[in-house]
Amino acid sequence: MSPASRYTYLGPEGTFTEAALRTLPEAATRELLPMVSVPAALDAVRAGEAAAALVPIENSVEGGVTATLDELAGGEPLMIYREVLLPIAFALLVRPGMALESVKTVTGHPVAQPQVRNWLAATLPDAQWESAASNADGARLVQEGRYDAAFAGEFAAAPYGLEPLVTDIHDAQNATTRFVLVGRPARPAARTGADKTSVVMWLREDHPGALLELLHEFASRGVSMMRIESRPTGEGIGRYCFSVDCEGHVSDRRVGDVLMGLKRACQKVRFLGSYPRADEVRPTLNPGTTDEEFVAAADWLTRCLDGRA
Amino acid sequence: MSPASRYTYLGPEGTFTEAALRTLPEAATRELLPMVSVPAALDAVRAGEAAAALVPIENSVEGGVTATLDELAGGEPLMIYREVLLPIAFALLVRPGMALESVKTVTGHPVAQPQVRNWLAATLPDAQWESAASNADGARLVQEGRYDAAFAGEFAAAPYGLEPLVTDIHDAQNATTRFVLVGRPARPAARTGADKTSVVMWLREDHPGALLELLHEFASRGVSMMRIESRPTGEGIGRYCFSVDCEGHVSDRRVGDVLMGLKRACQKVRFLGSYPRADEVRPTLNPGTTDEEFVAAADWLTRCLDGRA
Amino acid sequence: MSPASRYTYLGPEGTFTEAALRTLPEAATRELLPMVSVPAALDAVRAGEAAAALVPIENSVEGGVTATLDELAGGEPLMIYREVLLPIAFALLVRPGMALESVKTVTGHPVAQPQVRNWLAATLPDAQWESAASNADGARLVQEGRYDAAFAGEFAAAPYGLEPLVTDIHDAQNATTRFVLVGRPARPAARTGADKTSVVMWLREDHPGALLELLHEFASRGVSMMRIESRPTGEGIGRYCFSVDCEGHVSDRRVGDVLMGLKRACQKVRFLGSYPRADEVRPTLNPGTTDEEFVAAADWLTRCLDGRA
Amino acid sequence: MSPASRYTYLGPEGTFTEAALRTLPEAATRELLPMVSVPAALDAVRAGEAAAALVPIENSVEGGVTATLDELAGGEPLMIYREVLLPIAFALLVRPGMALESVKTVTGHPVAQPQVRNWLAATLPDAQWESAASNADGARLVQEGRYDAAFAGEFAAAPYGLEPLVTDIHDAQNATTRFVLVGRPARPAARTGADKTSVVMWLREDHPGALLELLHEFASRGVSMMRIESRPTGEGIGRYCFSVDCEGHVSDRRVGDVLMGLKRACQKVRFLGSYPRADEVRPTLNPGTTDEEFVAAADWLTRCLDGRA
Repeated sequence: MSPASRYTYLGPEGTFTEAALRTLPEAATRELLPMVSVPAALDAVRAGEAAAALVPIENSVEGGVTATLDELAGGEPLMIYREVLLPIAFALLVRPGMALESVKTVTGHPVAQPQVRNWLAATLPDAQWESAASNADGARLVQEGRYDAAFAGEFAAAPYGLEPLVTDIHDAQNATTRFVLVGRPARPAARTGADKTSVVMWLREDHPGALLELLHEFASRGVSMMRIESRPTGEGIGRYCFSVDCEGHVSDRRVGDVLMGLKRACQKVRFLGSYPRADEVRPTLNPGTTDEEFVAAADWLTRCLDGRA
Repeated sequence: MSPASRYTYLGPEGTFTEAALRTLPEAATRELLPMVSVPAALDAVRAGEAAAALVPIENSVEGGVTATLDELAGGEPLMIYREVLLPIAFALLVRPGMALESVKTVTGHPVAQPQVRNWLAATLPDAQWESAASNADGARLVQEGRYDAAFAGEFAAAPYGLEPLVTDIHDAQNATTRFVLVGRPARPAARTGADKTSVVMWLREDHPGALLELLHEFASRGVSMMRIESRPTGEGIGRYCFSVDCEGHVSDRRVGDVLMGLKRACQKVRFLGSYPRADEVRPTLNPGTTDEEFVAAADWLTRCLDGRA
Repeated sequence: MSPASRYTYLGPEGTFTEAALRTLPEAATRELLPMVSVPAALDAVRAGEAAAALVPIENSVEGGVTATLDELAGGEPLMIYREVLLPIAFALLVRPGMALESVKTVTGHPVAQPQVRNWLAATLPDAQWESAASNADGARLVQEGRYDAAFAGEFAAAPYGLEPLVTDIHDAQNATTRFVLVGRPARPAARTGADKTSVVMWLREDHPGALLELLHEFASRGVSMMRIESRPTGEGIGRYCFSVDCEGHVSDRRVGDVLMGLKRACQKVRFLGSYPRADEVRPTLNPGTTDEEFVAAADWLTRCLDGRA
Repeated sequence: MSPASRYTYLGPEGTFTEAALRTLPEAATRELLPMVSVPAALDAVRAGEAAAALVPIENSVEGGVTATLDELAGGEPLMIYREVLLPIAFALLVRPGMALESVKTVTGHPVAQPQVRNWLAATLPDAQWESAASNADGARLVQEGRYDAAFAGEFAAAPYGLEPLVTDIHDAQNATTRFVLVGRPARPAARTGADKTSVVMWLREDHPGALLELLHEFASRGVSMMRIESRPTGEGIGRYCFSVDCEGHVSDRRVGDVLMGLKRACQKVRFLGSYPRADEVRPTLNPGTTDEEFVAAADWLTRCLDGRA
């Protein structure tokens, strides 16, 4: 297939990322290519070898989050066109015939461990945990006989010839991972009225209050921040950039006004796209922040300048 | 003369307001009409009977300040086109021949009293003070023989046949009154680079923080407020509007952006004009607030919308 | 009577201030002494010649407001122990027998004029206004035959042998003036649960945001500001102090915490007292701002320091 | 040895965490116990099986950061007593005799990959990367012959019988990882004047501005935030807590005041300790934020309450 019909994702096969990707209707007609890491998945897009990449960005069970944030913040610009929310539950995968009481060694990605820890302590208190490079890799190691069982998505059983002995394991209720579909920069996804916008911003100076001022740019237009994460810039401990999701679409006036404010207030700001919210929640707007009020304010300013206010 | 060549001012003749008005070059070719009060001076402008009115707005020695603020906030809209700063010093005016030691009774506007109190206590500790309706009215009452001496501007001596017995009396150093030249709404005065903009704003709601949010509109664009005064709205104790002067001209992008923010955030906002600062001080702009940076931010937003950021 | 039983007030007799003073129960047993000006009334207290002074502080019809603010901000410290709200309505006072249609000249304090202007334009469109030094002084001038009618409180008729021809004149609905009873510094009035606290604060530096930071001290503890007024400091145009009333009593933890914050953040702050609100309205507290929560936070900090958090 | 002399750390042997731990003088006299994961290292402390644990908290090359943040935010309380900064540079470890040009397959922790990617692309463009569960585990896999080379700390060579073929590999300049020494809650580390304080805070409500208000608690006392990270609370996408480091010690008044403000403003706040800054930088205090000024403000409030202000 041509690069235009190829989607990469954080592999190997059998990861939650693949499961998330398969929830997209267009995945059925695309070549889905597992990559060894988030950077590799995104580099394929940058290089034109794939049209888009699906990578975890939040609450991942496979460790991709900070890699994703850092890749989107640095290097050749990329943009987010879509988000996917996937409820996370683990299955305990074993070779066919293995009984629960025979499981002495278990494996899985290190990030999965805290999510199954309580279950493991209650159910298999004597089982020994060793980490694998990914949940799917853990499955492979079970297949090879190195461990008795692996925590992974239930969908990882078949590819590795395993059986899900127990399913729906997750210490936290409502565990969900958020994935984003990333492509090369182009016109943002169309406005739906229930949208989200992502940016990365670098503070101009490091004084007590610099971050505060940026948050004011959002708050003063009534634009809710939905996620904020600090990431080291690589210029040394204590130097950060901030990765932010806010509600709204870049073509909403309130959001556009926030973005212009950030552009002026930041040392640097990178627009990562506007795209439909997976939860389809529409915002409640504060007084003074509708498109109509922005237009009315601009009209009024023109009248002030013309002596007709 | 026609109304177009007539300027009103807070009278009677011989007030500091008249002295301030005469510092304007065009005053030489205008009919200068003293009015009984600030509202009367401004109503003549509203009615088309005068082209403009000069009234005190700040630190007045004649009590016009709150009347001026309230008149500009309410009624038919008016606009400020100019400001005048006048150093304030009083003269002790007496009938010719009167000696300082013979002065037993003194008069003046009640607002003048705190400005000469220390001098009076030191120089004429036994003199009795009675208030007059204006400083000039005090001069008239001395002329009529009702009091021995009046505090007024030195320029008020001649019109009332008095002599300045002592001059340059002012308890506070650097006492200055600020006057504004007010006309009907039209195109603002041209931008000079050392400008001031005046607005009145009414809070949308009365919560702990509503005023704070408005002040943020200024601070977040690095626009310094030079004066803020609360005034009762007339809707009962505890209901206020805020009269504000800030640096900059409505055609400066940072100021226009503040005004649009106020327009959206306020229940009501009234633009009172942009005009040259009498002190000719040019602002130091914060990073991110130059016209160039505002234009660059708008360009960048357009590129974001077009997929070219 | 002794100074301890003497109250001064902004005179002359027959002013609204006297009417406000007479609403206080203890006024019946005090010597009430009219003074020529707000500074004079307050200086008598400072000098120990009177126990307290009643002066207008807000929305005055007699011009005392800024004088009061400036006197409380400067000079020997004074404190507010009580506030009085007086609905303001004017009567048109005439000599007995004068008919409304015969009134050709009217007088009153300049500050009264905007409050009766509409009524005057509608009822006596041809009457000529001239200002008097006070509303009561206007009554005296009518008594002397200099004007046909004076605007003053109805209570000013009898002392000057006049008759109220029309009563209850006030352009604005709910016109009210607020007066404060001022004494020498001592323990504040007892907490009632519906209290008000007054301070004057001088900004440490004049940067865009200095005032903002002070307002945050209030907002961050959920303490509502009920009045804020800027006043020139006398150090030149553009130098202000801020006179603020907020809800609550200095012994309320949230208010005490605000005051300590102001003390640290301001160049100077002057505590003007805590006293019962005349409107007896009790505040609705924000989450996190009750006395109990302040105490709990202090306890928690102690536990953190002790390793028991 | 007894649990009191045992330190756990994020293992296996040969990780950067072990290298960081060995920089602590007391490490020489402690039993150092590698654990399979950050949760395991911390649980040993909670269970009383170890006195303390060293775990990466920031910019880790081994993926421990979010696990560390989540472990400190939830479960039985723990406290930070010390931080260690370790410059991060990788070595390419091979079996003795292996030449650079023979390296076809390389491994390492997924988090290490972005930190050596550029070097790898330039030096070994054809080498194939596969992820290992940790950098040390990668070394072990090279020892077993599964891969030709592993990226790990130079110190990991000896334990696995490998040789560092290339050293000092790091794409970013100044790459540093920050580790913290964590123990059960007790009295914080003594104040040094160059300290850091860590807290986790949960917002009371999810409105545009809730985070802003918390940041104000820091900014209004001039306390610089040095790190802020949002972490999902586990109650679903969009619900966060914030992990913050700020300068100063809990016994500094400005910091104590911030903490009390957070305690009142947050739904929940967890104190994670005050400890010496590894960089030994002392803060520059803002006007109004010294211990002396806090004490003076408290004294002044007492005088206000007593009528002696």
